[in-house]
Amino acid sequence: MDKFTRNFLTEWRRLRLPFADKSFVLAVSGGADSVSLALAAARLQTEQKLRHKFLIAHYDHNLRGAESARDREFVEDLAGRLKIEFVCRTADERRRYDDGNLEQNARRQRYAFLLETARKTGSGGVLTAHTLNDLAETFLLNLIRGSGIEGLSALKTVRNFAECEDVRLIRPLLVWAKRDDTESFCRKHGIEFRQDAMNDDLDFRRVAVRKKLIPLLAEFNPAIIETVARTSLHLGADRALLDNLLSSDEKFGALVEKPRPEIKSLKELAAPTLQKFLRKWLVERRGDLRRLDATHFRAISDLIHSRKSGKVVELPGFETVRKEKGKLIFQKPEVEK
Amino acid sequence: MDKFTRNFLTEWRRLRLPFADKSFVLAVSGGADSVSLALAAARLQTEQKLRHKFLIAHYDHNLRGAESARDREFVEDLAGRLKIEFVCRTADERRRYDDGNLEQNARRQRYAFLLETARKTGSGGVLTAHTLNDLAETFLLNLIRGSGIEGLSALKTVRNFAECEDVRLIRPLLVWAKRDDTESFCRKHGIEFRQDAMNDDLDFRRVAVRKKLIPLLAEFNPAIIETVARTSLHLGADRALLDNLLSSDEKFGALVEKPRPEIKSLKELAAPTLQKFLRKWLVERRGDLRRLDATHFRAISDLIHSRKSGKVVELPGFETVRKEKGKLIFQKPEVEK
Repeated sequence: MDKFTRNFLTEWRRLRLPFADKSFVLAVSGGADSVSLALAAARLQTEQKLRHKFLIAHYDHNLRGAESARDREFVEDLAGRLKIEFVCRTADERRRYDDGNLEQNARRQRYAFLLETARKTGSGGVLTAHTLNDLAETFLLNLIRGSGIEGLSALKTVRNFAECEDVRLIRPLLVWAKRDDTESFCRKHGIEFRQDAMNDDLDFRRVAVRKKLIPLLAEFNPAIIETVARTSLHLGADRALLDNLLSSDEKFGALVEKPRPEIKSLKELAAPTLQKFLRKWLVERRGDLRRLDATHFRAISDLIHSRKSGKVVELPGFETVRKEKGKLIFQKPEVEK
Repeated sequence: MDKFTRNFLTEWRRLRLPFADKSFVLAVSGGADSVSLALAAARLQTEQKLRHKFLIAHYDHNLRGAESARDREFVEDLAGRLKIEFVCRTADERRRYDDGNLEQNARRQRYAFLLETARKTGSGGVLTAHTLNDLAETFLLNLIRGSGIEGLSALKTVRNFAECEDVRLIRPLLVWAKRDDTESFCRKHGIEFRQDAMNDDLDFRRVAVRKKLIPLLAEFNPAIIETVARTSLHLGADRALLDNLLSSDEKFGALVEKPRPEIKSLKELAAPTLQKFLRKWLVERRGDLRRLDATHFRAISDLIHSRKSGKVVELPGFETVRKEKGKLIFQKPEVEK
């Protein structure tokens, strides 16, 4: 067995994923990374190391005219050659600017399609082809944007879909494969791949990080991808440990559960613990931390510590956090009928 | 009172430092940062907001011939004008390459001089003029080098000298001043400063980060210094919280204290906890983590989890960690008489 496929299998074992009788969706854009993902899965199936039903799912962003159609045909053809079922959806142009920017919408719609495909086919997981390069790029993008430990360790090898706890998002290449590895794996097996078929190319900042920032960083350290990726993984481990220790701290856990915790109890928390509290408490109330940044957390922290009462911190989307009768209260905007 | 001096005083209060009757050493190289430090301290003394004995300490690295002498004379002259006692030491050329590289030696010798000055004069603290820029540069340097949460949050506002717990190293500009602020503060008060007098210029990698990397990052985010500095401070808070939670975990604390912990207990720790354990356990045994990198930790972790016994991991400086009779043992090289 070639090295790439062997590494894939080793990672599969390390992640304690099942070896037979399940169904998995392979997200394939047509770029070297996702073609390698499909190829390795197909090879492991042929060699009976994995005995699953795989599906290749392609989301056609329909953004580049004939090129988009060619990506789709290429992936369909690949699926045929690998004897893997092919599923595809073409983006609805009208919904492109529904909410947020084009890139965010495109990604959200792609993941919605992948999740839907998984549910329809009874699959327990969606496999995506993120590599060490994506890990490093995501770290750098979040660093530039302004981020704490969460953003710097955002990509995980396995996580559940927020919308559906039964389906896992699995990244079996994330902690060991580089983009160079996927390209040479494809070449070695005489399998073509689409240049610039990557979904990430929708994000011009990511492309700038890849083409300008990383080459400069590589002048300082030629192994910069591995180095930054490893830092991201270490921070992820620290963060998991921190979450673990905090959630086993009974007093802290009880406080997070409270819809209206007492300001007095919050004042007793040390500054970093209060930060952690606010993050967890707001996730409980809002579902996630989207669109919140350090300014919001600082404002809420000031609200807790200031002596004036009745003050309000405004969050994006007309949400508020306020202090009332010695309690901290989160409020969503009232929905009109 | 001008804004810079007011910010200095606000930070002094936030750090809960004393307002009178102590002695502090000001580390002054002659660059805008340290000239601003001295100037702000002198102004607060004149206005009787701080009533301390300050000393200006200058370490002459003696590396640039006449330029070095001019830096020294400049700082001595500044001290005279600010009516602050001046202390100086010129580097011993013969000891320049004692151990490690020039830059590390120079820094070590400078800090040794500052600590000695503090002890001789009964000072409780050494003030250095590190700014948000230094915080961001140090983060980026450690990121490039390969680092975990410790290296990414290496600079602290207050810490004790490792060699002497009675003397604190204080960085009163670290979390709010930028290099631009110190330069304009000097100019506003008609005080000259030495261009390129910064000690950091000994470190060519730091200069490259400042002159090449940060300008490129600023194309992505013009506030990159503040953004990266804030991330470093957040990680420092996470790290402090983590250390705090771990040290209040009795089982974990007891394990770290053991000179020869049982392999069986170590195997029960989750991967991130084991990493934390190894760091703390090795600090206890060695004094610090100098010259250790991720490879060493991975090797020790493999040693713990592998079934073969009697294996040894070699650390720099002929130190070893080995597994013997079900225990983990750290050993320093035997010193010859």
